[in-house]
Amino acid sequence: MRKICVVITARASYSRIKTVLTAIHAHPKLALQIIVTGSALVDRYGNIIPYLEAENLPVSAVIPNLLDVESDTASAKTTGLAVIELATFFANHRPDVVVTVADRFETIATAIAAVNMNIPLAHIQGGEITGNIDDRIRNSISQLADLHFVATENARARLMYWGLSPQKVHYTGCPSIDLVFQHKDYDFNPYEIYGGVGSQPDLNDPYLIVLQHPVTTEKGHSKWQINNTLHAIAALNMPGIWFWPNADPGTAGTAQGIRAFRDQHPDFPFHFFKNMESGHFIQLLKNCACIVGNSSVGIRECSALGIPAVNIGSRQLGRERGPNVVNCIPDTEAILSAIKRQLAHGRYPQVTLYGKGDAGEHIAGHLATIPFILKKHLLPA
Amino acid sequence: MRKICVVITARASYSRIKTVLTAIHAHPKLALQIIVTGSALVDRYGNIIPYLEAENLPVSAVIPNLLDVESDTASAKTTGLAVIELATFFANHRPDVVVTVADRFETIATAIAAVNMNIPLAHIQGGEITGNIDDRIRNSISQLADLHFVATENARARLMYWGLSPQKVHYTGCPSIDLVFQHKDYDFNPYEIYGGVGSQPDLNDPYLIVLQHPVTTEKGHSKWQINNTLHAIAALNMPGIWFWPNADPGTAGTAQGIRAFRDQHPDFPFHFFKNMESGHFIQLLKNCACIVGNSSVGIRECSALGIPAVNIGSRQLGRERGPNVVNCIPDTEAILSAIKRQLAHGRYPQVTLYGKGDAGEHIAGHLATIPFILKKHLLPA
Amino acid sequence: MRKICVVITARASYSRIKTVLTAIHAHPKLALQIIVTGSALVDRYGNIIPYLEAENLPVSAVIPNLLDVESDTASAKTTGLAVIELATFFANHRPDVVVTVADRFETIATAIAAVNMNIPLAHIQGGEITGNIDDRIRNSISQLADLHFVATENARARLMYWGLSPQKVHYTGCPSIDLVFQHKDYDFNPYEIYGGVGSQPDLNDPYLIVLQHPVTTEKGHSKWQINNTLHAIAALNMPGIWFWPNADPGTAGTAQGIRAFRDQHPDFPFHFFKNMESGHFIQLLKNCACIVGNSSVGIRECSALGIPAVNIGSRQLGRERGPNVVNCIPDTEAILSAIKRQLAHGRYPQVTLYGKGDAGEHIAGHLATIPFILKKHLLPA
Amino acid sequence: MRKICVVITARASYSRIKTVLTAIHAHPKLALQIIVTGSALVDRYGNIIPYLEAENLPVSAVIPNLLDVESDTASAKTTGLAVIELATFFANHRPDVVVTVADRFETIATAIAAVNMNIPLAHIQGGEITGNIDDRIRNSISQLADLHFVATENARARLMYWGLSPQKVHYTGCPSIDLVFQHKDYDFNPYEIYGGVGSQPDLNDPYLIVLQHPVTTEKGHSKWQINNTLHAIAALNMPGIWFWPNADPGTAGTAQGIRAFRDQHPDFPFHFFKNMESGHFIQLLKNCACIVGNSSVGIRECSALGIPAVNIGSRQLGRERGPNVVNCIPDTEAILSAIKRQLAHGRYPQVTLYGKGDAGEHIAGHLATIPFILKKHLLPA
Repeated sequence: MRKICVVITARASYSRIKTVLTAIHAHPKLALQIIVTGSALVDRYGNIIPYLEAENLPVSAVIPNLLDVESDTASAKTTGLAVIELATFFANHRPDVVVTVADRFETIATAIAAVNMNIPLAHIQGGEITGNIDDRIRNSISQLADLHFVATENARARLMYWGLSPQKVHYTGCPSIDLVFQHKDYDFNPYEIYGGVGSQPDLNDPYLIVLQHPVTTEKGHSKWQINNTLHAIAALNMPGIWFWPNADPGTAGTAQGIRAFRDQHPDFPFHFFKNMESGHFIQLLKNCACIVGNSSVGIRECSALGIPAVNIGSRQLGRERGPNVVNCIPDTEAILSAIKRQLAHGRYPQVTLYGKGDAGEHIAGHLATIPFILKKHLLPA
Repeated sequence: MRKICVVITARASYSRIKTVLTAIHAHPKLALQIIVTGSALVDRYGNIIPYLEAENLPVSAVIPNLLDVESDTASAKTTGLAVIELATFFANHRPDVVVTVADRFETIATAIAAVNMNIPLAHIQGGEITGNIDDRIRNSISQLADLHFVATENARARLMYWGLSPQKVHYTGCPSIDLVFQHKDYDFNPYEIYGGVGSQPDLNDPYLIVLQHPVTTEKGHSKWQINNTLHAIAALNMPGIWFWPNADPGTAGTAQGIRAFRDQHPDFPFHFFKNMESGHFIQLLKNCACIVGNSSVGIRECSALGIPAVNIGSRQLGRERGPNVVNCIPDTEAILSAIKRQLAHGRYPQVTLYGKGDAGEHIAGHLATIPFILKKHLLPA
Repeated sequence: MRKICVVITARASYSRIKTVLTAIHAHPKLALQIIVTGSALVDRYGNIIPYLEAENLPVSAVIPNLLDVESDTASAKTTGLAVIELATFFANHRPDVVVTVADRFETIATAIAAVNMNIPLAHIQGGEITGNIDDRIRNSISQLADLHFVATENARARLMYWGLSPQKVHYTGCPSIDLVFQHKDYDFNPYEIYGGVGSQPDLNDPYLIVLQHPVTTEKGHSKWQINNTLHAIAALNMPGIWFWPNADPGTAGTAQGIRAFRDQHPDFPFHFFKNMESGHFIQLLKNCACIVGNSSVGIRECSALGIPAVNIGSRQLGRERGPNVVNCIPDTEAILSAIKRQLAHGRYPQVTLYGKGDAGEHIAGHLATIPFILKKHLLPA
Repeated sequence: MRKICVVITARASYSRIKTVLTAIHAHPKLALQIIVTGSALVDRYGNIIPYLEAENLPVSAVIPNLLDVESDTASAKTTGLAVIELATFFANHRPDVVVTVADRFETIATAIAAVNMNIPLAHIQGGEITGNIDDRIRNSISQLADLHFVATENARARLMYWGLSPQKVHYTGCPSIDLVFQHKDYDFNPYEIYGGVGSQPDLNDPYLIVLQHPVTTEKGHSKWQINNTLHAIAALNMPGIWFWPNADPGTAGTAQGIRAFRDQHPDFPFHFFKNMESGHFIQLLKNCACIVGNSSVGIRECSALGIPAVNIGSRQLGRERGPNVVNCIPDTEAILSAIKRQLAHGRYPQVTLYGKGDAGEHIAGHLATIPFILKKHLLPA
């Protein structure tokens, strides 16, 4: 049995690889080791432990390391701590492959620990471009990885272009899209299950979903940016669901903006959730009139669903997208106008840009069968 | 005044950027901050503090973090500690640019700390290929850096090819070659100045220099590899100078091999040094009949000097080289035969593959004048 | 000049040693190095940097290390990080004495770093008893320290009793009491200066001050405990000033309790502050009708002021106290009844149990003159 | 089943608690978790993993954290790293009690991690006095611990005197003495089993054992001190067994002193071992004419064996001792004279000062039955 260690550092990353975890766990030749760390252990950013338990996925270790996010050294120090403690886990549990996901700042810790210990490293979602600082982390990890499972054909081409060996770069589609194809229709009461605060719109009527994170390199603007979105949405006066931001630098500004706005607008017709199981989230997504903000969900998942998306600002600037996305700058008027345009348009055709729903199975299959000759991987193609 | 922070993690890195440090320190518009960390603080791997003091170069901080090298988590943990403490230094001293050098495992810590704190990162010696694990670290840092000072035209072309903006990649030549052009003739007594152990060959007669480090991904073979080199040299029965290996994984095997061999061969005609000021080292290099081992010195500095080099094994496999290098596998017969071939050939013509001797000045000039608009750097070219 | 390094880890610790800092800074034979770390760098727990700047006290380094407090490893990891980075500061700045204050969990990091580096350690406020887990940290630091500046005669006797040398234990009184003797009358507008939220009571009328922290070993009860206090105060319907809790384990429960209560009681006649300069705080204290909660302020500062104090629960159980304190269990009825009793009593006579107002000067004087023969300190008295 | 987690940081600590480990492991109501960390994982200081495996004792985790000992921040940073990673282990494995042993600098990390996580802490060998810096660490841990298993009646009295509750302090004797009572006669060939270097004395003839560690607070003198011992022994010209020093600060000087002496005295009639299984060590001890150096073995184990001991310098100055010990200063003449005196005297009567051989059983029994009411432990007796 090959031991496959997957390190999950954030709520968003968990959703992105849930089907990979399930497929590895079910595979007769693979033993799954899950490490949960970073903001994925902190309630207010979305503790994923209950979701893993609900799916009967085994947690091999929790490694708390998130520094208080007010500090501008917090992301560096969280990353440094992660390198140190992941090395200890690897020394004790000797995985055959370590899997890291996407491009958050702290994911590079997984890569560094694995490379320093000569353990083959697999990277999911490499080769993409978003146009912000995440590109640097993602590309940096691609350079460290031994094995790449990419979400799009373009991403594969880009890694080939850098000189990586074709045997090492596999187009599997994005595992987050798998969930979209497994979705059920909306059939649950989110207010009962997830609590949260604010109005409780009837989700059988048209509603928006808003998901806006701080932009790491614009963290000083996060409060102003969220304010513009809040005022645009308020002007629209349409109900909706709002998700709190992740733990990136600038998150205090985003959260303060939301809190102050809520204090001043007690009748704002939105409900605010901290976190939601990804299947439930997909149900709400599938059912919504339009998604607004700067999450990759609007571009990735919604391309497969045909849901109109308003993508605000620079966070997803370079990301490959289908026809369902309208971009706008973080300005109240621009946001309002873009949402109106999308509501007028309605649903888009579904496209398979990010995969066909079998990425998890493909990745597990590759992990079970690819020969790992570490020395060969280290030589240029 | 722009504050330029240079992080030095190893003896070898210091030699590589000595002329950059001097040029920054002398520049009227630049304030130099030097951080010394990792093996560069440890006597048996070559503590560089005395050399910095001798050059009147200011040390802003020492950050001891080298774990005992026996552990296979040592390099990961040293890297993690470096990320943590460099972040604190950056938070307290707010450099305008952080400079990292080359490709040792722990240099990526500098890159991660700088990127996480939104401080522009300059990388020296990116874009090269050696054909071993160092490539991964080097390329990974290139992906994180905002500014690149490369040693060869090929290296620049490679980074362009990855899509980096031409304004960000500067061909300056390699600062380590600057020293070669500043060299004096052999005029000092190394035994008096540096101590060391073993025979004391007369350096007016022909002699070899040996510099063989463990190969990170072949650390289990380091003792066997050094033994083969030792026996080849012994068979040749020519005097020489041997330098102890650096602190990479496998160094215990290399050191044990040397110690055991010395115990069994008390008359071995070599002298063993731990460390040497780089100007003195260049003098000995310039004067030697042939350099043997797997240091980049044989390929880089010796290309500019025309010194015959025998390059053993995989450590420098892909590195761009001039006519002075003969490769061989780590086998006693192969090494012996390669050395004999080089001794028979003698000096080669000097080539400027790695620069013309003005890299330090060029780099300091760029650092003083390049506009740093961080947000722009973060966007793809 | 002796270099005296004072490490401050929390807002409360700063207030406790402010007069020591001022006296060291003013002393002609002492050079002051201040390190700010832990929650003392985080806005929502009371960032002390602005206060230090306002006093022209020099900050030698900031060391951010507070982990997100939700984790039950947070206090351990913050302590571990502090040991690591304080060691680096000590290695770079070589203080002659390191000073640590009181008994918060992370203060032991200062002690460990100093002892491991053979730097004499001075401890302020050792030898006291509070009856909770803080005793263990405080006593543990006393065992590590070379020099003790204690707040009460009883504390000195207790350290003597353990076998410490009389030359090493100095009764100076508590520096936090110095501030009480420097107090001015209430003459500022706290709402303008410090913002905060809630009602704005007229502070010329009688008012309460509430300061209730989570109890580390009862962290699961922190929400229930604060709720009982909130309901007791609400039943009283008297205006007041409430200070947010510090960053100890359980703080999330305390903060949630307060937030939820405020949501349900929009007319609650209290104003909520996060932090306040200690001189201003003393003004408000001096002027208040009664202090309620579990802060040591009610016992220490208020003994010197004669302000009635209601001390709730176990946090200060064993602390030496004057006549002004009434204890009660964390029960709504008990708290309400105790406050009523204190309001009926009014002011108490002032006592000098914790010093006469010159502790800062005394401590600075000792630090300037005590002979430091490290070897001798290490031998038993 | 109660989970008992024992943290072992050094070869010496392992020997001291071997019988405790065995007794816990054999106990039907206890589940043993062993963590190996610090120098106990490093070959040249005595990697204990092989010994644990040989005894079928389960290793729950290895946590490599020893910094390169040349740095004067090494012991602090090793301690800081230990706190961080032990907290993670405790969070993942939730021991019911954590056990720490004796007084080495890094043992306090175990105490801090346990206390910060509200896990009851048991300390073995508290309450003793050695008269050096170890006292501070030991006493500091005693202040943090919930439960104390002490080696002598005096030690128990001392902890009582500090105010600890009688229910928390148990006189069990020292587990290291248990081994002495289990000893067999000398029946193995140490040269075959343990390798080592140097002469191979016939151990049926009279021989010395030397065990001299650097003194932490005198680390600058470690080379000079070992030299004096070496010259005293050389003057005696009696064969013997020498054990390399532990990893404390100053160890480089001690090791260099030994290496240089061996180079100059190729016929020195001693054999040098790095490490030895404790049962074998006891055999050699039982059989030797005199033990020389500054290890506690000469005072503790040898009191039960009646072996003459020469105790050099300040390292064990205050330790409670039986009649078998002669003290001397670290001077060649003084050492030589003391050894001669002891050789002339021969064996001493055996005393039970440090226990009767059943400490391991006693401690395991207490751990299985003592009620752990954490809150009560936190209150003063």
